[in-house]
Amino acid sequence: MLKVGIVGGTGYTGVELLRLLAQHPGVELKAITSRSEAGMPVAQMFPNLRGHVDLAFSEPSVEALGACDVVFFATPHGVAMKQTPELVERGVRVIDLGADFRIADPAVFEKWYGLPHSCTDMLAEAVYGLPEVNREAIRKARVIANPGCYPTAVQLGFLPLLKAGLVDVKHLVADAKSGVSGAGRKAEVHTLFSEAAESFRAYGVAGHRHLPEISQGLARMTTGSVGLTFVPHLLPMIRGIHATLYATLKAESGDLQKLYEETFAGEPFVDVMPAGSLPETRSVKGANTCRIAVYRPQGGDTVVVLSVIDNLVKGAAGQAVQNMNIMFGLPETTGLGQIALLP
Amino acid sequence: MLKVGIVGGTGYTGVELLRLLAQHPGVELKAITSRSEAGMPVAQMFPNLRGHVDLAFSEPSVEALGACDVVFFATPHGVAMKQTPELVERGVRVIDLGADFRIADPAVFEKWYGLPHSCTDMLAEAVYGLPEVNREAIRKARVIANPGCYPTAVQLGFLPLLKAGLVDVKHLVADAKSGVSGAGRKAEVHTLFSEAAESFRAYGVAGHRHLPEISQGLARMTTGSVGLTFVPHLLPMIRGIHATLYATLKAESGDLQKLYEETFAGEPFVDVMPAGSLPETRSVKGANTCRIAVYRPQGGDTVVVLSVIDNLVKGAAGQAVQNMNIMFGLPETTGLGQIALLP
Amino acid sequence: MLKVGIVGGTGYTGVELLRLLAQHPGVELKAITSRSEAGMPVAQMFPNLRGHVDLAFSEPSVEALGACDVVFFATPHGVAMKQTPELVERGVRVIDLGADFRIADPAVFEKWYGLPHSCTDMLAEAVYGLPEVNREAIRKARVIANPGCYPTAVQLGFLPLLKAGLVDVKHLVADAKSGVSGAGRKAEVHTLFSEAAESFRAYGVAGHRHLPEISQGLARMTTGSVGLTFVPHLLPMIRGIHATLYATLKAESGDLQKLYEETFAGEPFVDVMPAGSLPETRSVKGANTCRIAVYRPQGGDTVVVLSVIDNLVKGAAGQAVQNMNIMFGLPETTGLGQIALLP
Amino acid sequence: MLKVGIVGGTGYTGVELLRLLAQHPGVELKAITSRSEAGMPVAQMFPNLRGHVDLAFSEPSVEALGACDVVFFATPHGVAMKQTPELVERGVRVIDLGADFRIADPAVFEKWYGLPHSCTDMLAEAVYGLPEVNREAIRKARVIANPGCYPTAVQLGFLPLLKAGLVDVKHLVADAKSGVSGAGRKAEVHTLFSEAAESFRAYGVAGHRHLPEISQGLARMTTGSVGLTFVPHLLPMIRGIHATLYATLKAESGDLQKLYEETFAGEPFVDVMPAGSLPETRSVKGANTCRIAVYRPQGGDTVVVLSVIDNLVKGAAGQAVQNMNIMFGLPETTGLGQIALLP
Repeated sequence: MLKVGIVGGTGYTGVELLRLLAQHPGVELKAITSRSEAGMPVAQMFPNLRGHVDLAFSEPSVEALGACDVVFFATPHGVAMKQTPELVERGVRVIDLGADFRIADPAVFEKWYGLPHSCTDMLAEAVYGLPEVNREAIRKARVIANPGCYPTAVQLGFLPLLKAGLVDVKHLVADAKSGVSGAGRKAEVHTLFSEAAESFRAYGVAGHRHLPEISQGLARMTTGSVGLTFVPHLLPMIRGIHATLYATLKAESGDLQKLYEETFAGEPFVDVMPAGSLPETRSVKGANTCRIAVYRPQGGDTVVVLSVIDNLVKGAAGQAVQNMNIMFGLPETTGLGQIALLP
Repeated sequence: MLKVGIVGGTGYTGVELLRLLAQHPGVELKAITSRSEAGMPVAQMFPNLRGHVDLAFSEPSVEALGACDVVFFATPHGVAMKQTPELVERGVRVIDLGADFRIADPAVFEKWYGLPHSCTDMLAEAVYGLPEVNREAIRKARVIANPGCYPTAVQLGFLPLLKAGLVDVKHLVADAKSGVSGAGRKAEVHTLFSEAAESFRAYGVAGHRHLPEISQGLARMTTGSVGLTFVPHLLPMIRGIHATLYATLKAESGDLQKLYEETFAGEPFVDVMPAGSLPETRSVKGANTCRIAVYRPQGGDTVVVLSVIDNLVKGAAGQAVQNMNIMFGLPETTGLGQIALLP
Repeated sequence: MLKVGIVGGTGYTGVELLRLLAQHPGVELKAITSRSEAGMPVAQMFPNLRGHVDLAFSEPSVEALGACDVVFFATPHGVAMKQTPELVERGVRVIDLGADFRIADPAVFEKWYGLPHSCTDMLAEAVYGLPEVNREAIRKARVIANPGCYPTAVQLGFLPLLKAGLVDVKHLVADAKSGVSGAGRKAEVHTLFSEAAESFRAYGVAGHRHLPEISQGLARMTTGSVGLTFVPHLLPMIRGIHATLYATLKAESGDLQKLYEETFAGEPFVDVMPAGSLPETRSVKGANTCRIAVYRPQGGDTVVVLSVIDNLVKGAAGQAVQNMNIMFGLPETTGLGQIALLP
Repeated sequence: MLKVGIVGGTGYTGVELLRLLAQHPGVELKAITSRSEAGMPVAQMFPNLRGHVDLAFSEPSVEALGACDVVFFATPHGVAMKQTPELVERGVRVIDLGADFRIADPAVFEKWYGLPHSCTDMLAEAVYGLPEVNREAIRKARVIANPGCYPTAVQLGFLPLLKAGLVDVKHLVADAKSGVSGAGRKAEVHTLFSEAAESFRAYGVAGHRHLPEISQGLARMTTGSVGLTFVPHLLPMIRGIHATLYATLKAESGDLQKLYEETFAGEPFVDVMPAGSLPETRSVKGANTCRIAVYRPQGGDTVVVLSVIDNLVKGAAGQAVQNMNIMFGLPETTGLGQIALLP
């Protein structure tokens, strides 16, 4: 049994990790820390866990966490980069669900996240935890940068096109829509029910922190830099991301459906749907699956890709567990067999 | 492995049964029938099942169903009572998620459901499948009447008070609220998104089909008939029932919290929450749990009970699987360990 | 033209007042104050007002407010009781949408609101602004206590029964459900979209501040005190209150439908619906209307009343404008002709 | 007073027309027809209209409609083209909220709508009722083709760019999202609450009927044909369209904010928001307004335009009333002063 710790378990990523790990046959939850809630039983804050998780939140402690095989950070950026080195030193492997190790260039990190990177050696070593791209490196990694939610949906959607070199990489468009849980469990006016229900709007049009992460990922799939316009929107629902991707074909493309199916053949958590399908976010609600459909409307030179995930699962906690499975040599799907809740 | 068949799998109860049975370690899905959709892969209608259920809908056939150990009817009333006798004759055990075997008195059935009962001998034999009340009888039953969703929430909520004889049974009030999935997957105007969202209303105030079922169940907990006012309401959400129950104490009641905890001690799927708790429907979304809290506001003689379930799980498919487990001697919680999806 | 000021316009009651007053033909908006947002154009915070309201929030100032004919307080409790005396002294009439003048007994106010009442002479003079009960007193009032949202729906629903002396007033039950906007525009976790959507729960079962207000109002309709069990619930929608009321008839009641229709005959904002109707909250969304239906299920001795309002209109801002119209001799419906938005 | 008739008032466009016309000071509602509901009071189907509209649905009759000054068709395509000629012959002016007169080329109409056009002379004469483009022609029109909801939001958003000739018109992208009310009040499974809530998906990616309408409108703003990729999506909310538009600048663009403000200066129902704004659909809920923001992310050559409307108001009934006002020489804003309902 893997001994597992979680730092910062009071947010939605934390409770989702707990839901998945409590049902995972190969792990033992050893500690879940929260400075502000230390002492409170986890199931008091999240009553869905009553009868499933007996732990209480505890004060962060290097001793307790250092005795784990793997520690997940479900914290705002800036926390993991401080605490990771001493855990790694003690032989703990770290999976950061935050942003600290996602951006390879410390200057770019500082620009978008507003603080200097304090752990650049770990940053250099960290592996970007998108299994469909980096599976081999993940196996041996000591530190995993678990991808952001939008970046997961967008990169998986563009991957076949960019690997095959089919499209104009200078004019990629990602029109992405996320449920409100992506904004976390912070008390803020703009995510109140009465603000976010029965309405829809874009945000971060001038620049969103996931833009450099996505651009970096896409650039790695091709040669040279990419030009990406990324417009996120807030959906009046709790869970789910739908990325609608647009790219212009440079030449005749061949059979795009086949390209997508072949690219993801064997991937346990990417489902290329039959031609003509319309992926619904609810088809992955609670599941670690990315479903994708590809179109070429009116036979023109614009490719449209539809890519859906549950932002809290394949876009966060589920992908983190997938990375853990890979790191520790467990079957990749262990503990991730949940079927999406529909309706 | 139990061989399982489902009759009528195109509704929400059907897809929920499939979700639970596909993850159940002790069953093998043999057939799922739908006259109208015969030939269509189940996962085409319900894409959450892609990769989990390979079956296609098939024409109903006594041969195929007769080879099963157990058959679930997820059909409108009137279907199960026609097909049950020949299945039982072949040794198949039947769990009807519809209403055909719930009302013991055929005249009452006919009054509320508008058709005569065509299978009164099976009706006499059928066991009302509320495990917390009838567990022993369920073990040996050939035919189970799986309780309705409202009746499950209301009966479990009132059970301790009525068994203990503490309240005036002539003036019970059940103010119940259900998510829209309770109305099923039928194309009707009043359950369209644009009709049911951002609104709330009562329905069936003058009389609802669950009233005689609940009254019958409550009467069995006490002596003589009960007087129940049952007002169901339609919630602008998909899943979940919240029953708010009111009763008047006949005399000093003692410690109601303790009464509830003791009544349900050992019940794997009833969670009496700590005093002062406010059960949320989301705390049971996707889980086979009923969570209950009991209050005596301002120390007066009115008891208030709050009881929540997921109408599709403990109120339908989950309870049906629980009944199957009991009937076949499996541990009662087999395949029912799902943690509610929160948020 | 009436000169109107608003104190505390940054909440939902404030923006709703602005929506109604901007369309009211007899008023001129002179000032809207907010200490925290002084200087910001109102339409920047509430973009629905762009092109309709040009005012900016201003610092509270007795001079500016003192020049108004009427000032609305859309503030948390404790504010109006401090500022009302000097406004009244200057001849301004005050309508408080908060709780400061609703509870006649200062000791009861202090018990439920946690601070002593600092303005008991004004409290003694203030008129409870429920026009259907107090119209004549409202005409001459200098200070109006605008009723709470739940209290409006519950009192109007019980009024005919209590005035006629038909029911056991010691065992009244009000099972009430409110949209999330009733909780205001404060940054709090429990009203986040991801907390309040797709879920339903009760709150304040042990005691809610609207309980003493409702009890006081009901007691005034009958003789002696009343026994009320009041259970509020949080609906996953923005606007609307649905109160489901239960009472036990003491004797044969006669025609309840007729009683309700006669009681509210001539009331411009109470709509007694035809027998058998099921009032929907959406039928009053944005409108100053209370719609009511009355039932006697199965001909028993329990009366069920369904009463719906928009909590921000008839439950707050609309009723305040209605009170203003009455106070200043305008036709009562002036500026309140909005038709509910459906769907 | 204009005498007004409505054909087909049982859908959402119909009830919205009634809401607006009942509050319009210059019209008198003479008839609202529905073959299926003839005899039923309109307010029985739409209880928000109780106390505001006394009409009952009537059988369609040329006599009754022929006595009107203007008749609105709120019908599925195919109805208006049959009935318009005899009304026009009697001097009635017709505003069709359906699709019959939107597509100038009958062959294109037949291709997308699946039936031949039976009234090509009226089609040739009909004016496309987008006031911001066609105001002068609308004044004198006998037959107005009221634009579709998506086409209104998309055309207004692209208008300044195309008129100014700034962008590559061969690669326009319109990623559009609509609330469920856009699908109408038909009993269908895919728009049930339990299907459409808590989920998001694209539809019509391979081809949607609004594509030729938008393409035709955009082509008229420029020279030659346009290349448009149009992807509509279904939002889990009732009202509102958000179009996110992407275009590539051909050369240096100058000040886009200024271009937009100047293009729409003086337009009463188009609100170009300040630079950096994020239009919310709720800011126009119930109002006849289109709010627009324009961006050039990271200073690149991609322009992003955000355009929001209420699909039932500026996207249907409100624009129809605006057209009526123009046709009959009333101030264009008459009866259209509603402020959006927020929250």
